[in-house]
Amino acid sequence: MSKPTMSKPTPSQTAFVPFVSVDNMMRLVHSLGIEEMLKGLAAYIEEDFRRWELFDKTPRVASHSKVGVIELMPASDGEAYAFKYVNGHPKNTREGLQTVTAFGLIADVYTGYPVLLTEMTLLTALRTAATSAMVARVLAPEGARTMAMIGNGAQSEFQATAFRVLCGVDTLRLYDVDPSATGKVVRNLSGEGFDLTICRSPEEATEGAQIITTCTADKQLATILTDNMVGTGIHINAIGGDCPGKTELHRDILMRSDVFVEYAPQTRVEGEIQQMPDDFPVTEMWEVIIGAKPGRASQSQITLFDGVGFAIEDFSALRFVRDRIGETDFFQNLDMLADPDDPRDLFGMLRRAR
Amino acid sequence: MSKPTMSKPTPSQTAFVPFVSVDNMMRLVHSLGIEEMLKGLAAYIEEDFRRWELFDKTPRVASHSKVGVIELMPASDGEAYAFKYVNGHPKNTREGLQTVTAFGLIADVYTGYPVLLTEMTLLTALRTAATSAMVARVLAPEGARTMAMIGNGAQSEFQATAFRVLCGVDTLRLYDVDPSATGKVVRNLSGEGFDLTICRSPEEATEGAQIITTCTADKQLATILTDNMVGTGIHINAIGGDCPGKTELHRDILMRSDVFVEYAPQTRVEGEIQQMPDDFPVTEMWEVIIGAKPGRASQSQITLFDGVGFAIEDFSALRFVRDRIGETDFFQNLDMLADPDDPRDLFGMLRRAR
Repeated sequence: MSKPTMSKPTPSQTAFVPFVSVDNMMRLVHSLGIEEMLKGLAAYIEEDFRRWELFDKTPRVASHSKVGVIELMPASDGEAYAFKYVNGHPKNTREGLQTVTAFGLIADVYTGYPVLLTEMTLLTALRTAATSAMVARVLAPEGARTMAMIGNGAQSEFQATAFRVLCGVDTLRLYDVDPSATGKVVRNLSGEGFDLTICRSPEEATEGAQIITTCTADKQLATILTDNMVGTGIHINAIGGDCPGKTELHRDILMRSDVFVEYAPQTRVEGEIQQMPDDFPVTEMWEVIIGAKPGRASQSQITLFDGVGFAIEDFSALRFVRDRIGETDFFQNLDMLADPDDPRDLFGMLRRAR
Repeated sequence: MSKPTMSKPTPSQTAFVPFVSVDNMMRLVHSLGIEEMLKGLAAYIEEDFRRWELFDKTPRVASHSKVGVIELMPASDGEAYAFKYVNGHPKNTREGLQTVTAFGLIADVYTGYPVLLTEMTLLTALRTAATSAMVARVLAPEGARTMAMIGNGAQSEFQATAFRVLCGVDTLRLYDVDPSATGKVVRNLSGEGFDLTICRSPEEATEGAQIITTCTADKQLATILTDNMVGTGIHINAIGGDCPGKTELHRDILMRSDVFVEYAPQTRVEGEIQQMPDDFPVTEMWEVIIGAKPGRASQSQITLFDGVGFAIEDFSALRFVRDRIGETDFFQNLDMLADPDDPRDLFGMLRRAR
């Protein structure tokens, strides 16, 4: 530890917290390649799902208002502690702002000192997609290559890319109530190795698809998918229903499906299964991944991932970024922690700065 | 809102979060003057105590390990949302690190966007002292000018200064198990308008004092003050007992005192009153401040502030800094929020950055 001088206090190394800005996160993604980033995130998330029982888990701490929610999502494995700050304001889009913005931090449990602060709007989009694809790799029918995407907002291209990289999906059937959203996806994904079809209804989108991804953003009880649209043997990746009062699927679909979740206590409040009784049977994905519970048992079964986003996925993503930025210059050091020469002499440090 | 260009994405104004580093916090304190800063913080805290019932209050969210704790402390008044990250690692001092480091953030509830990120190690020391002195101004016996300070660690000079500025205390009787800690306080407070006496025991320190401040740091059930040391009519400012398993006062003192707290559900877990039954009578300070409950009723009464630090005080402190830095250059803008031209086009923003 370098020591601050008496005359002009300068922060020591421990006083600095590396910070990854949005710009640096984009540089990190492109230096690794988005495919490698998604694979890496999926591997870290799977690794943390495998040691699920080890984590100190709490449902997120939410502060609700009439227009949205602000949440803190903490998780710890006993060595590292991480949390994410994330808002959810569906009305923001109409005002030219993001529905969801996020940042996060990872700290050393032994000292309590933060070791990384980072933007997480982009990182959340990437980890959400990596989680969905990691789950689909386990649950989707074998050889699935066609995916319906209902809802073509900010998350959709990330989902599509993760499913291409991790599951081999190469055909997308796109639908959104707003055709300009679909146009945006087509622009962004042209030349990225997909066969793209623009559909005029959700029904048309689901035709011939082995995987259906629903990711719409409105905060309401919607019915994006009705029972007649869902054939046997498919996998549904439902990620838009992610807070109380926001669902996308008709309950009849839930009745016919085997439902897989991240963390049941949270999903029963926030997910599609908020429509169902408290004892509605679900399987937590970590149990499938460690082999304690079955995943897909037959080609005719409907599997449904009721994804809401859990703190451990953010923990994994923060761990991934922490492990990758060390050798790069994709961060700046923030003088965030007061670190006087003598730890008891905080006042002296302040006084000498005068 | 300025728009990012297509060729090279640059963050728009809403993407920036002003960040106050430790260095800039020290510049802010000195530009205002530490006296004015403490007065300002006390005024903001008192204002927020007056509208206590309006706040969305939750006890802090703690993650405990064998060596310490990491906590998130959120609070919201419906317009602003704030939280503080704070660790407590008593063993850190022996390793040349701070026992407590902190940073915090305040956001706009309407958009969910952060509007200020700041160091809070210094700010917490200041707000803790401002809270104690604001409380003592109400509860301490009239004309109190002599304060015993038992525990001369990082918080002590801040306490002393706040009591001088807000309560007129000009005589300090100092004691610490480690004489070098007391020596540090004497060095730091010489020439600051105090009559300073170094004492060889807690008993000696309390002689003639109208206010006793206890702020020791060890995480254990200690007995810094015993019953025979506490005469009638004094005010005790007990701020060191602030987490489960950490107390400073003998329970007989609590029996003889009228106990005042910030937020009873939290203090019963973390404060001196963790030694007492769950129905031990306490008064929340906000009730005294709005005039709903009596404070000091007689000159012979022992008043005891069982301070543990509550999220609303951090909210007030963050609000204060937010309101003061606007006209200064004591901050830097962090590119922390992804803010694409079209809010739905996060992927396009990432792609164009390649």
